[in-house]
Amino acid sequence: MGGNMRERIRAAGHDVVGYDPRPEISDAASLAELVEKLAAPRVVWVMVPSGVTEDIIEQLGGLLSAGDIVIDGGNSKFSDDGPRAEKLGALGIGYMDVGVSGGVWGVSNGYALMVGGDKKHVDHCMPIFEALKPEGEFGFAHAGPVGAGHYSKMVHNGIEYGLMHAYAEGYELLKASELVHNVPEVFKSWREGSVVKSWLLDLLDRALDEDPELANIKGYAEDTGEGRWTVEEGIRLAVPMNVIAASLFARFTSRQDDSPAIKAVAALRNQFGGHAVKR
Amino acid sequence: MGGNMRERIRAAGHDVVGYDPRPEISDAASLAELVEKLAAPRVVWVMVPSGVTEDIIEQLGGLLSAGDIVIDGGNSKFSDDGPRAEKLGALGIGYMDVGVSGGVWGVSNGYALMVGGDKKHVDHCMPIFEALKPEGEFGFAHAGPVGAGHYSKMVHNGIEYGLMHAYAEGYELLKASELVHNVPEVFKSWREGSVVKSWLLDLLDRALDEDPELANIKGYAEDTGEGRWTVEEGIRLAVPMNVIAASLFARFTSRQDDSPAIKAVAALRNQFGGHAVKR
Amino acid sequence: MGGNMRERIRAAGHDVVGYDPRPEISDAASLAELVEKLAAPRVVWVMVPSGVTEDIIEQLGGLLSAGDIVIDGGNSKFSDDGPRAEKLGALGIGYMDVGVSGGVWGVSNGYALMVGGDKKHVDHCMPIFEALKPEGEFGFAHAGPVGAGHYSKMVHNGIEYGLMHAYAEGYELLKASELVHNVPEVFKSWREGSVVKSWLLDLLDRALDEDPELANIKGYAEDTGEGRWTVEEGIRLAVPMNVIAASLFARFTSRQDDSPAIKAVAALRNQFGGHAVKR
Amino acid sequence: MGGNMRERIRAAGHDVVGYDPRPEISDAASLAELVEKLAAPRVVWVMVPSGVTEDIIEQLGGLLSAGDIVIDGGNSKFSDDGPRAEKLGALGIGYMDVGVSGGVWGVSNGYALMVGGDKKHVDHCMPIFEALKPEGEFGFAHAGPVGAGHYSKMVHNGIEYGLMHAYAEGYELLKASELVHNVPEVFKSWREGSVVKSWLLDLLDRALDEDPELANIKGYAEDTGEGRWTVEEGIRLAVPMNVIAASLFARFTSRQDDSPAIKAVAALRNQFGGHAVKR
Repeated sequence: MGGNMRERIRAAGHDVVGYDPRPEISDAASLAELVEKLAAPRVVWVMVPSGVTEDIIEQLGGLLSAGDIVIDGGNSKFSDDGPRAEKLGALGIGYMDVGVSGGVWGVSNGYALMVGGDKKHVDHCMPIFEALKPEGEFGFAHAGPVGAGHYSKMVHNGIEYGLMHAYAEGYELLKASELVHNVPEVFKSWREGSVVKSWLLDLLDRALDEDPELANIKGYAEDTGEGRWTVEEGIRLAVPMNVIAASLFARFTSRQDDSPAIKAVAALRNQFGGHAVKR
Repeated sequence: MGGNMRERIRAAGHDVVGYDPRPEISDAASLAELVEKLAAPRVVWVMVPSGVTEDIIEQLGGLLSAGDIVIDGGNSKFSDDGPRAEKLGALGIGYMDVGVSGGVWGVSNGYALMVGGDKKHVDHCMPIFEALKPEGEFGFAHAGPVGAGHYSKMVHNGIEYGLMHAYAEGYELLKASELVHNVPEVFKSWREGSVVKSWLLDLLDRALDEDPELANIKGYAEDTGEGRWTVEEGIRLAVPMNVIAASLFARFTSRQDDSPAIKAVAALRNQFGGHAVKR
Repeated sequence: MGGNMRERIRAAGHDVVGYDPRPEISDAASLAELVEKLAAPRVVWVMVPSGVTEDIIEQLGGLLSAGDIVIDGGNSKFSDDGPRAEKLGALGIGYMDVGVSGGVWGVSNGYALMVGGDKKHVDHCMPIFEALKPEGEFGFAHAGPVGAGHYSKMVHNGIEYGLMHAYAEGYELLKASELVHNVPEVFKSWREGSVVKSWLLDLLDRALDEDPELANIKGYAEDTGEGRWTVEEGIRLAVPMNVIAASLFARFTSRQDDSPAIKAVAALRNQFGGHAVKR
Repeated sequence: MGGNMRERIRAAGHDVVGYDPRPEISDAASLAELVEKLAAPRVVWVMVPSGVTEDIIEQLGGLLSAGDIVIDGGNSKFSDDGPRAEKLGALGIGYMDVGVSGGVWGVSNGYALMVGGDKKHVDHCMPIFEALKPEGEFGFAHAGPVGAGHYSKMVHNGIEYGLMHAYAEGYELLKASELVHNVPEVFKSWREGSVVKSWLLDLLDRALDEDPELANIKGYAEDTGEGRWTVEEGIRLAVPMNVIAASLFARFTSRQDDSPAIKAVAALRNQFGGHAVKR
């Protein structure tokens, strides 16, 4: 956590103790010591890779006391939140899920926070949220009950997939055009005055400043859980998702050395039309 | 033209003379000689690569006489038909466009024919159509006025793109599944009794018989004009075309060494999240 | 079950007893009586709406004996099969999942069968499969272990969604075209000789014979589990699914009175461009 | 043109005279008088509905003199620019195409300008562009030769379609979710700190402030030429366009009372499965 945020949280009357398995950046030697060092009622903000969240939260259930609160600020699936809240609630421990957006820029810009949980827990932790969120009127929402924070973050990321791919398709078309000679300049021009101005556009311009042809980047993109879950939720709730699904599928395609589907298409074209296949 | 068809056309009272720039398979040394050898009223069926159609038809305009008929059976764009019909019509020469489907199998199975043109020209040439089309009640339609034949063939091919890609996606999913051990057998099983049985399925089964893993085929597929025109017409007429467009775009993607769009996505992910890019 | 199939199964040495909650079409007054009436080793083919399958199979677990076999021929999700097989297996009871395709036509045409399960169970029940499947070499596959039958059927249906929608988009475009005057005739022509000939095309032609403008049908389509599961599996296994997903989403859209997404688009257009909105 | 811009252009040494067919807002009684009132070398900025652009530019060709410059700032198709430049160029008259983005907000915010044309013409008109564009370093690009301005604006709008629809799908999913109770709050929270912050998001928040349920807006969206041309160019240049095409097709769908494609799907489901159709 950036020094500034830590100080702002402290200024708001919450002490801050950090735990990390790497001793050199940890204030406590163990989760148990972390809990010990915090005065009750404690708020423990868990921000760990999704694979270990469940384990950490279970450990915390054994270490914390009634009246304490656990916050999961990681990228958990929304459907994991309810069961956790129930288990901790049986011990009198509160639970909130917080979707956190902002990427590596959040340290300086503040993070957008989408919170799921009980109003009393939200109110209690509001000084912490105030310290983490951007200054000004935006950047925070109490989205609904437990689960709603991660759900909102999931949809946020789904939208992000679609936004990124819309710019990406436009980029590819401009690159392919015979007329537009100065593609990075055109993207840069949109940063002010245009309908498509956005922070993602600013970042794309930044990337093009560093590497105008994106020559050092391979067309290969990972995806994380949120994009997939968004489309799955679209399917569950019968919400058409052509744009977000297409942007997800494009990433899948980008990671294939060869497409089995197109092999089948090529095989068919060869069968009925005698069209040559590449071998 | 297969011997059998030639005989059937002759049996129907139309003489058959073929012209091809390769003398060894041509009945005439030139287009002029072809026209000379045919008794009026002549029917000249043009079946040439789309790049040369216009030139051939213009030459024929200079060689034929009023009362003759030109048929374009190639893969011309429907919008070329009207102007041709008009030019030839001014000379008293009829024009029909015929969409021909059947691939390399048409020689033995007969071809499905979709005809655009005047009823009197269709009636006059019906014996020829009868000789080319499959036996039985199907395989022929007078789709509408000049242009309607190529238009129907265009849509036919657009549908074909979608059908092929639906099988292809299913193929890829079955290949990826942990449960289905015998993918070619499953496709084969669908050839009778199932809702997805079709000639394309038969051909895919045939391809899988020859190469069960499609190991000798690269995932690379060309596209021809009809698929593109179909989507363009969807755009012109405000007809949603998600399936056919997706199958067309998948072919585009299959021909890219690297995707500029995904480069942009990867650049963006790196910018906001510090996600590693492949270089 | 059609009389003919029943006789063919009997001819193959398996007695046939049917149970249905409706006494007038049931051979047995209860599941228990059904089990009683069958000689061991019994094969019980469950073919019920997916909501009640689990309950029926659990009841059968209590009624059957070691050496008996349960077959689920309904539209269960593939992931339900493993747990069922395990539970029944603990009692010495075999389990197979069979994907069955053919619709209402299967009674006369035979059904395409995709089977998941152990080879010994498949072998034991082969006479039953032979009686149900179409005559000829196709219509049956042992797709893999338990679950592979329903998995194959799921993919089959996903493909079916894509195929249907490809024809549907082509249909809509032909209807919208100014040139093609005789859309049903064009579809009919494709039934023989064309690359797009299929059983679904035959059925679409049949529907157009009954109602050439589809005037009595609303543009409203339900979907069943298999289409959704197919796309979910595509997401899980990172298989791009643009065509099948688009055909699924189009059905979702068809059931909406108004589109919240397009409301948002219209609101945005109004905000930035002053474009009028419909109210 | 807003008073402020007019003054800034004048301050930059260019006189400003406006012509509009409505006398009450026109500085000149006719195009001829407009031309007369301007000192040579003249710059005439045409900003008219796309249907009349061609005619106005042709008239100007007859009124202007060598050394004058015509700018088309409307939403012309890029392919119209080359022929215009050629015709005017034969008379010694320069031509530039300028894509203008900013909507109704441009008057106060400045407009993003994408310019196609010769460098000498761009340089000559730079004071005008400076007066119209936003303050600061962004909002202007000389994209390439004649046509590149409208091409860039076309792609800009294509991207805009995709961006809008990404937000729209996310909006619909949040509305459908059982967990997120406060959808407008969630969108508002993203305005600062989040990865999806943008001007379009600000506007969507504004629309939700005015009508939190978008209850007074029908899910009906027009489209303009640029979205269609973008996809057509994607097709011409073999650039996959799944996202932008899907957002375009969704607008087409929104304007249909009933979907012929889904009628065909429903007819097929009825034919093979006996599924009920809505009538």
